[in-house]
Parts: sequence; structure tokens; C-alpha cells
Amino acid sequence: MVQPEAGPIPSRRGPKVVALGGGHGLAASLAALRLLTDQLTAVVTVADDGGSSGRLRREFGVLPPGDLRMALSALCDDGEWGLLWRDVLQHRFASAGSLHDHAMGNLLIVTLWEVLGDAVAGLDTVARLLNARGRVLPMTSVPLDIEATVRGLDPGAPDDLTVVRGQVAVATTSGHVDAVRLLPEDPPACPEAVEAILDADWVVLGPGSWFTSVIPHLKVPGLAEALRTTKARRCVTLNLTPQQGETEGFSPEAHLEVLAAHAPQLRIDAVLADPSSVDDGRALARVANDLGAGLLLRHVAAGADHHDPLRLAAAYRDLFGTA
Amino acid sequence: MVQPEAGPIPSRRGPKVVALGGGHGLAASLAALRLLTDQLTAVVTVADDGGSSGRLRREFGVLPPGDLRMALSALCDDGEWGLLWRDVLQHRFASAGSLHDHAMGNLLIVTLWEVLGDAVAGLDTVARLLNARGRVLPMTSVPLDIEATVRGLDPGAPDDLTVVRGQVAVATTSGHVDAVRLLPEDPPACPEAVEAILDADWVVLGPGSWFTSVIPHLKVPGLAEALRTTKARRCVTLNLTPQQGETEGFSPEAHLEVLAAHAPQLRIDAVLADPSSVDDGRALARVANDLGAGLLLRHVAAGADHHDPLRLAAAYRDLFGTA
Repeated sequence: MVQPEAGPIPSRRGPKVVALGGGHGLAASLAALRLLTDQLTAVVTVADDGGSSGRLRREFGVLPPGDLRMALSALCDDGEWGLLWRDVLQHRFASAGSLHDHAMGNLLIVTLWEVLGDAVAGLDTVARLLNARGRVLPMTSVPLDIEATVRGLDPGAPDDLTVVRGQVAVATTSGHVDAVRLLPEDPPACPEAVEAILDADWVVLGPGSWFTSVIPHLKVPGLAEALRTTKARRCVTLNLTPQQGETEGFSPEAHLEVLAAHAPQLRIDAVLADPSSVDDGRALARVANDLGAGLLLRHVAAGADHHDPLRLAAAYRDLFGTA
Repeated sequence: MVQPEAGPIPSRRGPKVVALGGGHGLAASLAALRLLTDQLTAVVTVADDGGSSGRLRREFGVLPPGDLRMALSALCDDGEWGLLWRDVLQHRFASAGSLHDHAMGNLLIVTLWEVLGDAVAGLDTVARLLNARGRVLPMTSVPLDIEATVRGLDPGAPDDLTVVRGQVAVATTSGHVDAVRLLPEDPPACPEAVEAILDADWVVLGPGSWFTSVIPHLKVPGLAEALRTTKARRCVTLNLTPQQGETEGFSPEAHLEVLAAHAPQLRIDAVLADPSSVDDGRALARVANDLGAGLLLRHVAAGADHHDPLRLAAAYRDLFGTA
């Protein structure tokens, strides 16, 4: 039998894209962007203080590895080797003992940090293990805490302000978040992340936990400066629904407004939203325009609160094609 | 500048060798044998109940992974990638918390067992990660306990027999070990280990903790049968010194005699010993001859109680060359 001749392997490349965020939102973003480009960098929040990451942070004083692990897993090669190691990284121990609920990838990342003595080199090694379709970087080289000013925690005094500290506490607050700060206030940006932003064609912020995964990047002075001065175009991708806790009751316009309030000098080129999540398209377009951005409405949802990787990729392709 | 032409990559191959043992003794054996052959299989005791392995065994009911990890590390490729992952596998967490003293490789092996559901497939995956120069197999697929009959634990009654249970307890007993048994008594041999022994050119037992790492293989019925019936030649490599605890006061002859007592039908082809550890060469040769073996005296020590990989390799080369 004659085998059909194999054509040349297509070189995918694509635009240089930097995705900023954390957690499941960033993973959804990467699952879409990896379909469009090989030149992809994730810049990840390092303020988590819950679960396996929080325990490792307290036990070893390291960056919380969980969001970094999730981003790496989202970029793994989709052959047998890559998928096996993704499953190994994502595996959680289940027992009645002290390893319960630790994610294997978190332990591996911490080990590589201790062996190599360098956060970026450790993450690059995991990326190589996974044959990952891009690079994953921490936004800073020091663990951060998030502190929020919250209104209305006490139903009897709805205008009183309370300070809430810690990513988990802020993300799940029953009050209305006014603003977030980082502790320390002036953390050093990861130099490779700054370089990637300055060298990018597109920078994508969101989707994700708005106050605890998306806005923190804007509070790192080095990243905020790079986002202001880069020649890259900037896209803000809105969430499909407000998040119980930190953004309960926030409209899409309110999401954009609080983002702008945390980075007054930031200009945006595009706002991407799903029409099903927008009640007042005109109001949203107006807020977007005030930030310099056009509004792109595209069907990108899969169910009520998840982005569909293929639809999101198609929307980004439309967007990047206009550049 | 003209580059020198690269010659063909030499294919090393070499004889098919199976090394049986555990712990540091097996690692020394593998460090030597890897220099002589690419067709190398380690068959490893799985009775450890101490340290990180013991904790994992109790928390997850799995085989103790520590000796398997050490054997894999001894076989790692000696390029940058292999050595990095060896260091990652051998890394031990140090903290005031619950991960303290766990070896990363133990956690990785347990994870692969949980993800793949198969002990051998998990170990083969680690071997592939390390680009290892051989295969590492557990001697059985069930965790074992070692139970010893020990004489003289009570100085007031030096002939009384006591039963001591657990690898750590037996290895460190202050009494004189008469015999060891396995619990369960009739564990299923790892089929791939049986196959490797039957297909080997040479099988090497020892060096290592005599009662807790070397003799246990002879108490697994399937392995004992394979060792009896294989066409392979069998070499017993003696320790350089008695081990504090389990073989304190044992001469080289006594080592051979207790091994023979635990496997009455086993024939041996060669006994390898360092002249510095042999007081009475004639007596040792006589015991060896009774088991069918010639005595090979070679300088293989590096210091008082470590085998030198190069000298040990040279001795095995002499031995295998006579076959």
C-alpha cells in the first residue's frame, strides 16, 4: 500500500501574545490563545493564600505555585507524553494524612525552585517537561498579599469601610470591594514578564477573578509601567457573570470602571464581551470608548460561566486580524 | 572552520544483567553495571517501613518507593537533563512542616502509580524521564514486611529467640539474626522481574543490607524459582564490612552461609569479594565452592565500606568475560 506523502509541517508561530491573570480564568484564556500562536507568555498572579498553595507558601516561604501550575497545564503539549505529565501535575493526593489535597505539580514546582534557586528557571523546566506551547512567568518574584477596602460588611452600617486581607478572604467577601492594594506595595516585577509585555503584539487582561487575579497586575509598578509604554495592543476580556463574593452585583461597565480606577493612565484598545452577559451594550461601549477601546461582542460562552476555548480563539483571531 | 566529522554513535549493549538488592548497596551495584551494559534490570526490595517511604506506605497503602527511587537515580542519563531530574527525584524537603524529609521522587512515583494504576508502568515512566540506562522493577507488587528470628536480645538469656518485625527494626537489632521471613509469606513475584531473570546472562545479588535487602528476594517463591531455573550465571557480591545491627560479627563465610540457608536449592557461579574484607581466603573459597561457585578476589573498595563504581565495574568485566 502506498502511503500518502506527508506535507511539510506547518509552522504556526502567530502573534506575540501575553496573557495576564490567574486561576481558571487565565487557564481558559490560554486554552484559546494556544490555538492561535506559539509565541505565548502567561504572567500569573502570586497572591494565593488558600489550599495547597497557601500551605506550601507558609511551610517554605515560596511563591504560591498553584496558579502557575494551572497555567502550565493549560499549555501542555497534547501528545501522549504532554497529557500524561499534565495529569501528573494536576494530580491531587487524597488521604487521611498530611499530604491530603496537595497538588503534585505544586510540590514539583517548589522542588525545582529549591534545586535551581530560580523561579523562572524552575517554571521553564516544567514547561520543557510538558513540551508546553508557551512560557509561564510569575508577575513578581516575591509572594504577595492582597488587601481590600470593603464596604458594607456590617449590614447595620452599610457605608463603613473594612480592611480585608488575603486572596481567599477578599475573593469571598460578603461586602462590596471598593479597591485592592498589594502587600508589599512596591513588589519588583519579574523582568522576563516586563520584557514579554514590551515585546508583545497583544496583551490580554482577563477573564478571571477581577480583584484578586486581574487587577493585581496593574498594582505592580513595573508591570503597570510596561503595560502603559508597550507598543502592544491591549485587550480586556470581561467575565461572563459577576463572581459571588468579590464582584457580586457588578455590571460589565462596573468591571471596566474599577479596572480603570486601579490604573488611571492605562489605555485599552479592545474590550471583548459575550452579548449574553451585557444588559446595556451602549453603556458598555461608552465606558470602553472612554478608555480608548472598541467593544467587540462575540459569542464566547460555553454554559453560564465558562469560556469556550474554540469560540474564544475565534474571537481573538478576529481581533488580532484587525491589528 | 571545518568541523571534525562525527563518527557513528557506538552501540554499547553488553550482556543482559539483572541486579537484585535495595538501598545504597544496589545503587553501588548499578553505578558499576551501567558502565558495562545497556541491558540492565534492577529488581528492588519493597519491605522498607522507615522514613519517607514508610510514611507514604502508611498514608496510601502503596509499595515503599524509596529504594526504587534510588535505583532509578543511579541509572539516570548523565547529560544535563538526566542529572537535573535525578537531583529533583533525590531532593528532600526540609521544613518545620508536614512535608519535612519527604523525597520528591517518592511523591512522584506514588503519583504516577495513582495516575497510571500500574506499578511497573509508573517506574518505566520515571525511567523515561531520566533517560535511564536500564529498567527498575519492584520484586513484588505488594508491600512486604520483614520478620526476623533474633537471638540474644536479652543479655541475661543469650539463647532465647525473639521475633522482630519491620525492616528498620531488623536492620538495627542488637541481637544476632538467625533467619528472616516475609509477610505475607507467599507474595506474587513481579512478572517482569521473573522474565528478566529467566532471560539474563548474569544475575548479581548484593552488596547490601544482607537480611533486609539481599535475602528477601530469595524468599519470594516466584523469584527463587526463576533464580534456580534461569540459564543465567549467578554472582554474589559480598559486603566490605559487616553491618552494624543485622550482620554485626558476621564473617564473609557467614554471609554466604546464611544466604544459602535461606535458599537451599540455589547454585551460585561466582562470589566476588574484596581481599581487604577477607580474613581467611581458604575458608571463604571452600564455602563458595560448596555452593558451586568460584571465588573472585578483586580490589573493589573505596574507603572502608563503599564500593568504587569503576573498580567494581572492572571486576564485573573480568567476571563476565569468562562466561
